[in-house]
Amino acid sequence: MSRSSTFPVFDQFVTATTGRNMTSAAYVAVTCGVVAIVLLTVDPAYPALHYLIYTALWACLAFFVFEWVIRLRHAANIGRRPAYILSFRGIVDMASALAVPVALVAEISPRSAWLLGMFWVLKVVPGIRGLRQLRRVIVQESGPLLSVLVIFLTVLFLASVAEFVLEHEVQPAAFGSVPAALWWAVATLTTTGYGDVVPITPLGRIIAAAVMICGLGVFGLWTGILATGFAAETRRDNFLRTWEHVSKVPFFATLGSSAIADVTQMLRTIDLPPRTTIIRKGQSGDCMYFIANGEVEVDLPGKKVALGEGAFFGEMALLGNNLRSANITTTRVSQLLVLDLVDFRLLMARHPDLAETIEAEAKRRAQENK
Amino acid sequence: MSRSSTFPVFDQFVTATTGRNMTSAAYVAVTCGVVAIVLLTVDPAYPALHYLIYTALWACLAFFVFEWVIRLRHAANIGRRPAYILSFRGIVDMASALAVPVALVAEISPRSAWLLGMFWVLKVVPGIRGLRQLRRVIVQESGPLLSVLVIFLTVLFLASVAEFVLEHEVQPAAFGSVPAALWWAVATLTTTGYGDVVPITPLGRIIAAAVMICGLGVFGLWTGILATGFAAETRRDNFLRTWEHVSKVPFFATLGSSAIADVTQMLRTIDLPPRTTIIRKGQSGDCMYFIANGEVEVDLPGKKVALGEGAFFGEMALLGNNLRSANITTTRVSQLLVLDLVDFRLLMARHPDLAETIEAEAKRRAQENK
Amino acid sequence: MSRSSTFPVFDQFVTATTGRNMTSAAYVAVTCGVVAIVLLTVDPAYPALHYLIYTALWACLAFFVFEWVIRLRHAANIGRRPAYILSFRGIVDMASALAVPVALVAEISPRSAWLLGMFWVLKVVPGIRGLRQLRRVIVQESGPLLSVLVIFLTVLFLASVAEFVLEHEVQPAAFGSVPAALWWAVATLTTTGYGDVVPITPLGRIIAAAVMICGLGVFGLWTGILATGFAAETRRDNFLRTWEHVSKVPFFATLGSSAIADVTQMLRTIDLPPRTTIIRKGQSGDCMYFIANGEVEVDLPGKKVALGEGAFFGEMALLGNNLRSANITTTRVSQLLVLDLVDFRLLMARHPDLAETIEAEAKRRAQENK
Amino acid sequence: MSRSSTFPVFDQFVTATTGRNMTSAAYVAVTCGVVAIVLLTVDPAYPALHYLIYTALWACLAFFVFEWVIRLRHAANIGRRPAYILSFRGIVDMASALAVPVALVAEISPRSAWLLGMFWVLKVVPGIRGLRQLRRVIVQESGPLLSVLVIFLTVLFLASVAEFVLEHEVQPAAFGSVPAALWWAVATLTTTGYGDVVPITPLGRIIAAAVMICGLGVFGLWTGILATGFAAETRRDNFLRTWEHVSKVPFFATLGSSAIADVTQMLRTIDLPPRTTIIRKGQSGDCMYFIANGEVEVDLPGKKVALGEGAFFGEMALLGNNLRSANITTTRVSQLLVLDLVDFRLLMARHPDLAETIEAEAKRRAQENK
Repeated sequence: MSRSSTFPVFDQFVTATTGRNMTSAAYVAVTCGVVAIVLLTVDPAYPALHYLIYTALWACLAFFVFEWVIRLRHAANIGRRPAYILSFRGIVDMASALAVPVALVAEISPRSAWLLGMFWVLKVVPGIRGLRQLRRVIVQESGPLLSVLVIFLTVLFLASVAEFVLEHEVQPAAFGSVPAALWWAVATLTTTGYGDVVPITPLGRIIAAAVMICGLGVFGLWTGILATGFAAETRRDNFLRTWEHVSKVPFFATLGSSAIADVTQMLRTIDLPPRTTIIRKGQSGDCMYFIANGEVEVDLPGKKVALGEGAFFGEMALLGNNLRSANITTTRVSQLLVLDLVDFRLLMARHPDLAETIEAEAKRRAQENK
Repeated sequence: MSRSSTFPVFDQFVTATTGRNMTSAAYVAVTCGVVAIVLLTVDPAYPALHYLIYTALWACLAFFVFEWVIRLRHAANIGRRPAYILSFRGIVDMASALAVPVALVAEISPRSAWLLGMFWVLKVVPGIRGLRQLRRVIVQESGPLLSVLVIFLTVLFLASVAEFVLEHEVQPAAFGSVPAALWWAVATLTTTGYGDVVPITPLGRIIAAAVMICGLGVFGLWTGILATGFAAETRRDNFLRTWEHVSKVPFFATLGSSAIADVTQMLRTIDLPPRTTIIRKGQSGDCMYFIANGEVEVDLPGKKVALGEGAFFGEMALLGNNLRSANITTTRVSQLLVLDLVDFRLLMARHPDLAETIEAEAKRRAQENK
Repeated sequence: MSRSSTFPVFDQFVTATTGRNMTSAAYVAVTCGVVAIVLLTVDPAYPALHYLIYTALWACLAFFVFEWVIRLRHAANIGRRPAYILSFRGIVDMASALAVPVALVAEISPRSAWLLGMFWVLKVVPGIRGLRQLRRVIVQESGPLLSVLVIFLTVLFLASVAEFVLEHEVQPAAFGSVPAALWWAVATLTTTGYGDVVPITPLGRIIAAAVMICGLGVFGLWTGILATGFAAETRRDNFLRTWEHVSKVPFFATLGSSAIADVTQMLRTIDLPPRTTIIRKGQSGDCMYFIANGEVEVDLPGKKVALGEGAFFGEMALLGNNLRSANITTTRVSQLLVLDLVDFRLLMARHPDLAETIEAEAKRRAQENK
Repeated sequence: MSRSSTFPVFDQFVTATTGRNMTSAAYVAVTCGVVAIVLLTVDPAYPALHYLIYTALWACLAFFVFEWVIRLRHAANIGRRPAYILSFRGIVDMASALAVPVALVAEISPRSAWLLGMFWVLKVVPGIRGLRQLRRVIVQESGPLLSVLVIFLTVLFLASVAEFVLEHEVQPAAFGSVPAALWWAVATLTTTGYGDVVPITPLGRIIAAAVMICGLGVFGLWTGILATGFAAETRRDNFLRTWEHVSKVPFFATLGSSAIADVTQMLRTIDLPPRTTIIRKGQSGDCMYFIANGEVEVDLPGKKVALGEGAFFGEMALLGNNLRSANITTTRVSQLLVLDLVDFRLLMARHPDLAETIEAEAKRRAQENK
């Protein structure tokens, strides 16, 4: 989908590097940059360290400018430049590349200018897998979450005004205004409790005790809502990833569609790079695997057997003596569906025909290996 | 249900404005009032700000008095004046309207009198959706919650007496009486931990450590009870809202009543104002919609198709290539039932006849659009 | 089961008063006693208050001694005196009755002697309903809870030793010994964070940050285990209370035993004293009731209808317009089974024969009432 | 599997002692050692205590060296010496045995050298039952946990840089560098809140309030993920332990395999040593037992009846008057499957044939005992 390009080599490079979400080099650069910014403000014990920090910062900045240019070019190539520039990633990339140079040009002191490099840490955010789930949770549970937030703010405000009225005469510095009392209230309601500002009057302390107990209640509700939502989202996310693959495994084809839905909820999808050892001989085994994508190699005495899409392995340990009988490693990038021992037992109990298939295959393999 | 009215125009206005729970103007007024009260006690840097604050406060007060008069009149019109005056909302409205004027008349200093405006924040409370659920949770789980509260108070009391006995000689100011030790105990048991009062003796510190660990335990129980209850209440609330609408969707009519109950638990109800974009072309789709109330408009190339009550849309993305194929917006205030992708898969797996209906409709629409 | 008694009148009184778990008088006495002990140590502003406190303390002590004597006599009467004396309740009663007099006789200062009255608060403990569930939870989940506790103590110990090594030279007062560092560690690991003792060295602060994050993790596990266990126990407790009653309601008799088990999980049991209003006319109704024990009275225009064991009421609001049509109050101590609206819908959907029975009865009652 | 041994007597001893995970003597030694290390740094009030501490430390060290030698020998005997030395347990044993002597030889002061004995506490870690489950939870939920951790670190870093910029001029000591601000941020985000370092500027305090609220959110997510995972792991662990035993109980043999899977989820496995009283006559009974391994003895008037593998007991209390009718104790080490009353009711409701079997057996036993 590229137009005829003025810089063909450059564009080939662009296409090669931007296929992935975030190159490993960018992760390294962000980590270096964050460490450098943290150390920037510490009085350098050694001038050499000082120069090392600034060198690292300039290197990271150069990398992020380079990465931004590449991404702009790639977006232009596939005709989605406005979408990219306005997206979260586009804004973060632009801020990461431009904020520090603009500040330096605007004659802000170098130490303050380089602190604007703190935006570099936002580049890792789109790559966090769980963030998408978190955003869905917050959107779906936004009603209850907002309710708890409003209760929190109401208690905060009422407690601040009450404490101001009760305490501002005896502690004019600490509770001299409602904003000052608000500072005490938010530290108490979140159970952080700095202790720099503390009520002295008996009635003020009673109100403070009520606020602390409310803080526990609000916190309990908030925790419960988020936790319940996140657990459900993780299961949902796993179901969607797995559904696509279950249909590729002929082993499940004999199940009715309702049973396939049940099995999908039991399976977990894992992605493995090549040459990863999945099973080691002699270890105790507590799950079996179905290959949705890719290929694995079974290390038997005297030969290596390859298993491809749709095959399963690891069942002998679940049926027999619990120890793995051979090493099994991936030969290509693979996606495997994992069926845990407990779910294996439940599945075999509910579908005796599947149980026969697996036991027959296990017997056949045991005989072959003698 | 209105009697013949002395002020017909006024009463028409009353009926028009009090239909809704809380007018948007009231929300704005409460927010302004709260901000003004917070800033009231800060020493004004600029006298102009000082006048601005008092102007805002007088405006909010005028609004709340006006709103109270309207509500009293409306309640009298429909013959429920005593019920209104005695209800939570009636008391809050009266306090919001009268507290500050009464205080000003009683010659309390303006700054303190206006702080009584803190009652204005209680006007938002009846409008919080989650509050009704929260009250049901607390009522239903009142047994376990009270038990945990009694355990909390028992530990509080015993720890206070113990620390008083152990510490009052070495720290006569901090632990000089059991109420003083109670202050330390409540700050510790809620893990707030101000640090203004801290045991010094070894045995006192051992008891303090035990109290801190108890605090975690009590807090864990409290959190768990509230969280479990709130999650169940949210599901219940959603079920009730959805049940009324499911019967209006002929698509579900062929299901037996038992299956309708299952489907109701899968659906979520959302309320949308007119001219809201529900689906954007090209986005990835992960749910489908059934129209319970209202109307939507599908933006197809060359024509606009209207879908009314009982129709469904959004299924093509779930069956096909995952991308939405057209923009769909509401034309009127609408209530939609949302079926998430995972539940869609489960529903289709368990009811193949529904699956056929949806696939047939999807095919028909795909052909129409060519 | 009483032997021939030396004091027949006294023993009749004993039998009459000790039938119940904790007389209301005892609750009042404990509350008075606790308040008196709390105020005991505050310097009396008015000597009259001082005498009032001591009067209250002597009255409570007299009551607890009297109650202990009665309970000893009752235990002897039914032949279970050793069991009573050795039980938790027996020991608490003895301590409550004897601790203060023994201390006063032993010439301990009155103020310290009366502080031994803190044992009086333990008398409420056996009466807490949720405590039995809590004890079951802790017993059943003792394995995981102990594991988390051991992890907690291990982290505590290692962190203390590490901080002692790192900080004892720069802060010899605060971190001068491992016990002092343990004090800091337990305040940090429980996230209480007094702040009286804080690491200064960079490595010490890094270890402190790790401890704080561990504290969150330990706390999360502890909370989760307790919360999950307590929720399960509450459901179990409700099931057991309800099972006994479901069999008395002929409405459920037509259900197979498996369906009875499901219905039992939906119902809640509530105990009501006589002359309690269960339903008020005009309120919105969201549950129906089955009478397991006792009797209620329906307040219809022109007559009052009594409903006894096995009858149900409240169903008309669930089937119709959601408003209660009459006041219903208990005439005797009653136990009712409550079926919530959502479960009512599910039950009717799954058992159409029950639905017909309820709708027929509702029609019959509606016609009778015209 | 032992080779011919140079020290046959020693090797017999070795085999006898290393069969179990952690001898009770080792637990005692670890506890003594930990207490001794804690007291080591406290200025000794009495020189005798000082000598007692060092004696205890030397004794523990001698024990741990002895235990390490035994384990090395045992590992060599069974031919797994390299695996042992490289395992966690092997490294901990070596550190426990060698760290202190090496430090003493290297002329480190005795007090600091003996502090290296803190590694002794790690010897209890492999023995914690819940630890295996905890590790599985962390591995399985590693995705969401890492996401929350990354969010935590991102908020931490951004808040630190922001507070440094806002506060370093007014509080050069407390917020003088980004690492100093990081110290404040981690104490606040974990809601520990020492209070030694607190923002003063208004904007700094607003950001601090936002950080505290974020801290609650992060903590809620973390708690929810861990708690959900741990609860699932406990159920899974119990299922696996129970599955092996259910097949040995002929009572369940008549159930289809699907029902056996359901029953397995209801049962709990408990391990009991000999001469343990399981049931006391007269207590209220709320569960029944199936014997998977071992033997119990029923204490009837006039005779003792032995029940072996596959038998069940405790059902009469569940069917009848709720009180246990006889004492039952174990005669050998036994594994029992416990079926709680609620699950008993559900099982009997769903499988009437099992209900008949149990009731017939209960009748037969009741008649025999007359």
